Amino acid sequence: MSALINAIPTLQIRYNEQGLVPAIAQDYLDGTVLMMAWMNVESLQKTLQTGEAWYWSRSRQELWHKGATSGHLQKVHSIRYDCDSDALLMTIEQIGDIACHTGERSCFHQIEGTKIAPPADTLSQVYRVVADRLV
Amino acid sequence: MSALINAIPTLQIRYNEQGLVPAIAQDYLDGTVLMMAWMNVESLQKTLQTGEAWYWSRSRQELWHKGATSGHLQKVHSIRYDCDSDALLMTIEQIGDIACHTGERSCFHQIEGTKIAPPADTLSQVYRVVADRLV
Repeated sequence: MSALINAIPTLQIRYNEQGLVPAIAQDYLDGTVLMMAWMNVESLQKTLQTGEAWYWSRSRQELWHKGATSGHLQKVHSIRYDCDSDALLMTIEQIGDIACHTGERSCFHQIEGTKIAPPADTLSQVYRVVADRLV
Repeated sequence: MSALINAIPTLQIRYNEQGLVPAIAQDYLDGTVLMMAWMNVESLQKTLQTGEAWYWSRSRQELWHKGATSGHLQKVHSIRYDCDSDALLMTIEQIGDIACHTGERSCFHQIEGTKIAPPADTLSQVYRVVADRLV
């Protein structure tokens, strides 16, 4: 059972007509927005129970344990909801540092049709190097 | 005419059944996610033309020039779209440093029902003080 279990009043969230709420995943270290996907009440509950991000895949119409296939799991550090309870924001630790199915770090890599890496915080990059060496 | 005018291929964005796309506003200095709202093609085009954030108000069913009433305008520094072209991410300069209608800095201030300010980057706070003193 994760420490997040009661972080969100799951039944008070305002899901849309499809029963979904947008969920933003942000790197817990440098604040880069990595992706936005959708959760239904079941995926939100599984996220809170396991401490890993579960979404609802609109294309496959099924629960989506992010990274279950690729290994790029998302460990959720915090989760909050907005002032009108219809959007979620998570800070996450992105395993493999790749959130996008294209292999890019962030899904938001497109500016004017070209691929540009989102800005990353130099201090966080140094931290990652140090943390990797401690293992 | 703003420098963003061609930043997004507005007609290639995948709007939902209501003609809307979610738009995330992130502080351009410290990366705090301030809010998520919705844009239709017209509000996106006005955002690109003016360099200020325009949304679509789902409750009022009208174009919403953020800050037109409160003064809390959002100057858009960059805008990008995600890998499947159905979400937008803007880095913005939040005039007044208040994005939420509740008076909080960020709309995402709720954790476990209590109000907690999102983390802010100390260096960015110092930068703001210095920048203010230069004016």
